[in-house]
Amino acid sequence: MSGEGHVKAKAPQYPYFTEEASAEVVNARMGQEADPRLREVMGTIVKHLHAAVKEIEPTHEEWLTAIKFLTAVGQMCTDWRQEYILLSDVLGVSMLVDSINHRRPSGATENTILGPFYVPEAPRYDHGTNICLDGKGEPLVVTGRVLDTDGKPIAGALVDVWQTNDDGFYDVQQKGVQPDWNLRGVFTTNEAGEYWYRSSKPRFYPIPDDGPVGKLLGALGRHPNRAAHIHFIVSAEGYDPVITHIFSPDCEYLDQDAVFGVKDSLIAKFERVTDADRAQALEFDEPFWSVNWEFVLASKKDTK
Amino acid sequence: MSGEGHVKAKAPQYPYFTEEASAEVVNARMGQEADPRLREVMGTIVKHLHAAVKEIEPTHEEWLTAIKFLTAVGQMCTDWRQEYILLSDVLGVSMLVDSINHRRPSGATENTILGPFYVPEAPRYDHGTNICLDGKGEPLVVTGRVLDTDGKPIAGALVDVWQTNDDGFYDVQQKGVQPDWNLRGVFTTNEAGEYWYRSSKPRFYPIPDDGPVGKLLGALGRHPNRAAHIHFIVSAEGYDPVITHIFSPDCEYLDQDAVFGVKDSLIAKFERVTDADRAQALEFDEPFWSVNWEFVLASKKDTK
Repeated sequence: MSGEGHVKAKAPQYPYFTEEASAEVVNARMGQEADPRLREVMGTIVKHLHAAVKEIEPTHEEWLTAIKFLTAVGQMCTDWRQEYILLSDVLGVSMLVDSINHRRPSGATENTILGPFYVPEAPRYDHGTNICLDGKGEPLVVTGRVLDTDGKPIAGALVDVWQTNDDGFYDVQQKGVQPDWNLRGVFTTNEAGEYWYRSSKPRFYPIPDDGPVGKLLGALGRHPNRAAHIHFIVSAEGYDPVITHIFSPDCEYLDQDAVFGVKDSLIAKFERVTDADRAQALEFDEPFWSVNWEFVLASKKDTK
Repeated sequence: MSGEGHVKAKAPQYPYFTEEASAEVVNARMGQEADPRLREVMGTIVKHLHAAVKEIEPTHEEWLTAIKFLTAVGQMCTDWRQEYILLSDVLGVSMLVDSINHRRPSGATENTILGPFYVPEAPRYDHGTNICLDGKGEPLVVTGRVLDTDGKPIAGALVDVWQTNDDGFYDVQQKGVQPDWNLRGVFTTNEAGEYWYRSSKPRFYPIPDDGPVGKLLGALGRHPNRAAHIHFIVSAEGYDPVITHIFSPDCEYLDQDAVFGVKDSLIAKFERVTDADRAQALEFDEPFWSVNWEFVLASKKDTK
């Protein structure tokens, strides 16, 4: 009997797996030809992912629960429902990415998330127009100005607004139920930087919570409600546009917004008005609500 | 004109979002009624997730690329394809979870991942049986013993083996093409702790790479191949069972296993044999391969 000898392994070019060096072993495998930014991003993700796993020490069953959750989130997504964005939202990641990408100079209006219901090319209206086309909710008049960081009015700025109706739905969520373009419109500031329009008082509404993200919120003892807000995109030539909200101060969910959209500086003062003459001039029933809000835009050269 | 005064926000019970304290703001929202382990797990995930985002500083487009990737991984999953487990595998997370849950006393055979192709209740065979039912590949004889950590043979231990055929597929991936139970079987050690059987030399094979995980591997400059291996589950009454592989030392992917399953201690020596008498006794053509492997089981009281 003769053998040709035992075949042994060559010295490895890449390290074998060990628990201790797990992240480094994985990251060592990335090819030098890979895109440098992808290498950086995936290297960081693997590092933090392994650190989290080592801290959690999941059982096999817990790991499988995570696999099934991530799968279910993906499978909930359709052309009109993005459950992974919802997950990003409720974990505060969307707000964090938004903040990182919109660090603004001191004094400029702070941004917050765009949300999924913005529709470009809304109707352009004259000042004073009532954009509440379904007549629901408590009447609200919104007045204000758009300024630069020196406090000077910006004429010709566009104030693009949208909000839910008093049932808690955006028009695009209830096509055929709400009038087209209900509670949307674009206003242009006058020479004094002023804008004004009529609408209804915003109210809280739940993000979609009939999927795996809603179940997670429930298990975490969290509710799905967004604090009552009005969306704005304010833009002007030569200035950095701001995507933001103003929040109604008396909403019970103000400090518990499900997607962490609330910043202290974005909470407005709402005035409850009982004034027959003013109501009549606005064609409102009494009482109505009034809010005044100044947007401050940074010039393009001052922003990141 | 009279107002009822401006409505202002109450002092918040939960903190508003800031970039700096983002993870703490999110975690502060978890209810005290939530399951303590879920609070711990999600708190750790949010902490590391936010740390990764702050380190990466993704653009909005990069964030959206991640959202779309995670969605696509979920949508690739079916009853017979689990793309999230593949993602866990190629990022080294499956191996890490496996390692954390199977820390074994020094001297005991190390574990590695189970993989998706184990089938319980494989046929129980007498020693020497050839489990390669399709006759493909280079012949291999596997001999060895099952020992305890003191080096004493364990009689009656079950050695449950499975591997791909020489085309790189498990029988269950090719039902109707391969014979049922091809390259699977269970052997029972004799009084000397010995087992032996005949098979074919294992070869590398790709994990499924036609989905988003395969695309990620490609973008990272990585290939989808698993190093050539034989799967084993070795168990005996009173001992901690071990789920493990042995690896063929001459496989070109030995140090680049796509799922990081290779541990240094699991690489066997394979002998290439040219011996007419031995070949004839085994009913093998020449040359054939031979591997001897000892499994060491820890007693249940020694393992975590």
